[in-house]
Amino acid sequence: MPIRTRLTERLGLRHPILLAPMALVSGGRLAAAVSAAGGLGMIGGGYGDADWLEREFAAAGNQRVGCGFITWSLAKQPHLLDLALAHRPASVMLSFGDPAPFAPKIRQAGIPLICQVQTLDHARAALAAGADMLVAQGGEAGGHGATRGTVALVPAVADLARETAPETLVLAAGGIADGRGLAAALMLGADGALVGTRFYAAEESLAVAEVKQRIVSLGGDETLRTTVFDVARQLDWPQPFTIRAARNRFTEAWHGREPALAENRETAVAHYQDAVAARDVSVAGVFAGEGADMIRDIAPAEALLERMAAQAEALLRGTAGWLA
Amino acid sequence: MPIRTRLTERLGLRHPILLAPMALVSGGRLAAAVSAAGGLGMIGGGYGDADWLEREFAAAGNQRVGCGFITWSLAKQPHLLDLALAHRPASVMLSFGDPAPFAPKIRQAGIPLICQVQTLDHARAALAAGADMLVAQGGEAGGHGATRGTVALVPAVADLARETAPETLVLAAGGIADGRGLAAALMLGADGALVGTRFYAAEESLAVAEVKQRIVSLGGDETLRTTVFDVARQLDWPQPFTIRAARNRFTEAWHGREPALAENRETAVAHYQDAVAARDVSVAGVFAGEGADMIRDIAPAEALLERMAAQAEALLRGTAGWLA
Ligand SMILES: Cc1cc2nc3c(=O)[nH]c(=O)nc-3n(C[C@H](O)[C@H](O)[C@H](O)COP(=O)(O)O)c2cc1C
Ligand SMILES: Cc1cc2nc3c(=O)[nH]c(=O)nc-3n(C[C@H](O)[C@H](O)[C@H](O)COP(=O)(O)O)c2cc1C
Repeated sequence: MPIRTRLTERLGLRHPILLAPMALVSGGRLAAAVSAAGGLGMIGGGYGDADWLEREFAAAGNQRVGCGFITWSLAKQPHLLDLALAHRPASVMLSFGDPAPFAPKIRQAGIPLICQVQTLDHARAALAAGADMLVAQGGEAGGHGATRGTVALVPAVADLARETAPETLVLAAGGIADGRGLAAALMLGADGALVGTRFYAAEESLAVAEVKQRIVSLGGDETLRTTVFDVARQLDWPQPFTIRAARNRFTEAWHGREPALAENRETAVAHYQDAVAARDVSVAGVFAGEGADMIRDIAPAEALLERMAAQAEALLRGTAGWLA
Repeated sequence: MPIRTRLTERLGLRHPILLAPMALVSGGRLAAAVSAAGGLGMIGGGYGDADWLEREFAAAGNQRVGCGFITWSLAKQPHLLDLALAHRPASVMLSFGDPAPFAPKIRQAGIPLICQVQTLDHARAALAAGADMLVAQGGEAGGHGATRGTVALVPAVADLARETAPETLVLAAGGIADGRGLAAALMLGADGALVGTRFYAAEESLAVAEVKQRIVSLGGDETLRTTVFDVARQLDWPQPFTIRAARNRFTEAWHGREPALAENRETAVAHYQDAVAARDVSVAGVFAGEGADMIRDIAPAEALLERMAAQAEALLRGTAGWLA
């Protein structure tokens, strides 16, 4: 008997777990696998590439999946939203930027709008834009994010939502890599969890084998938030967002020396691109979160989802032990 | 029927909640109030002052309380440990530095040794020193700490403890300000929680009224981790520790301009001291954590403890709603 929350009811899921729309990682195959296993998969629209997006929607086949965009990047090529909406996605998630310009079109299409937020100010903006669900993302998260921690951000966002728009669901993200994190998210007032890093190391993710192996060996203490990989990838990220990544030779060389990196940009970019091409994770970015401590294998998404849900369910079912 | 965990059994508590030994905030009266209400209060030995410590142990009266020290500071005046041990405290907590030099004496005295840790490396050192309990402290915490978030640090430390020394208890700290946080801590694998900021605004805390009021009005988004208050207070904190505090005019002026602060140190110190004397929190430090969002009143410690425990208990008791 699986866990039932407002999220599972609203979206018709078996498990209150969403796959994060990780840019270049959450392709159609991974998204479809998560949806098939009873969660909701979302394709990582990322920085936007119409061909990539079409291909990944095709790879999802007939499976119902959602799609996520990096909002400040979508603003540069808004037609990608139309492309996604044409596929009637199960949800559209917007993160990292003002959702207001895109919210009306998504809502008019009758597609649930999910907004990922990193602060209470972001949450207020998302509620004002009419978001159906907020993802409260803590700084433990892999990939881009900000600094507030999951454990205090989630209940604060839940309180705000309840006080202003109680029909809005709240999900927790950042550092949730097993059933303990999922059960904790529910206790904190969330209706479910959005999970990235754990699925980064799923068999179906688009990450290369070297990256998946590095996530398995990586500990949370070995990660940091930085801007140096965005310089290397020539991505113009706005403040306050930084990327959480594994420390490696590239961060040793440049993190904390950003002005020098800017001066040596061309060489650094070339060096970085070579490392990515060579799948050399001692230089290339592995954008994993602090939950890496709990990740000890590469496995099919279905197994990961089942494991997470079963562990959370056992915890919820076993509370009598604390109350005896 | 209150919550029962290994922590309540081991220490004979009614609630699995410890008061953080907050320097200059957790005095004997607050510690005694928390213990009387069924948690365990700890006096904040802080930077060490024998007279202060004697006075606060006296203020705790006959109530069983523990005592906490800032380890790197204790190393400068190790006799304070003897002073504390002479009071047969219910526990000694060490945080921020290597516990190994002090652990044998504490353990030989038969006093439970609690070590607060901010990374898995710290946790390994504390286990090697023979700690009876580890407090996994996330960066959401008020006061000093590091950057890892509570939600992923706690299960990782719990796994490490279980794999190396399963009798060692694990507590969660950082951003836990209500029963949701306490229930989440248990789900994450902790045996209980250590709480600071929520009790900073307790009636019995030694903080002045202006500081308590500021905590009530403060939001978690308005806090930051910084070193500028330690410069102002002329405290020589080692890396990687920073203090979480409310943003104010002092952080606006100096955070991110640390070299300039060092150059203008004397003036800044004098200015800061004046503000503290005048209880002017627009300049003086309010060392609150991200849990500030959940703090909406000043109340007696007993009421705060009862509220937190009752809310957590209701959550643990109500899990059937998720399993129906
Ligand atoms: C490799 C990677 C890429 C990501 N890319 C995106 C993205 O393109 N858009 C987005 O909204 N979030 C992105 N995220 C963040 C996730 O949405 C989510 O907040 C995060 O993965 C949750 O924390 P966790 O990684 O600890 O599970 C990414 C995360 C990772 C790990
Ligand atoms: C005002 C204040 C002073 C603190 N002083 C100390 C201290 O002297 N020694 C110590 O080990 N921890 C100290 N801490 C940190 C606490 O031990 C604890 O980790 C923290 O309060 C937990 O997070 P929370 O504030 O979100 O509850 C302090 C915290 C605060 C808020």
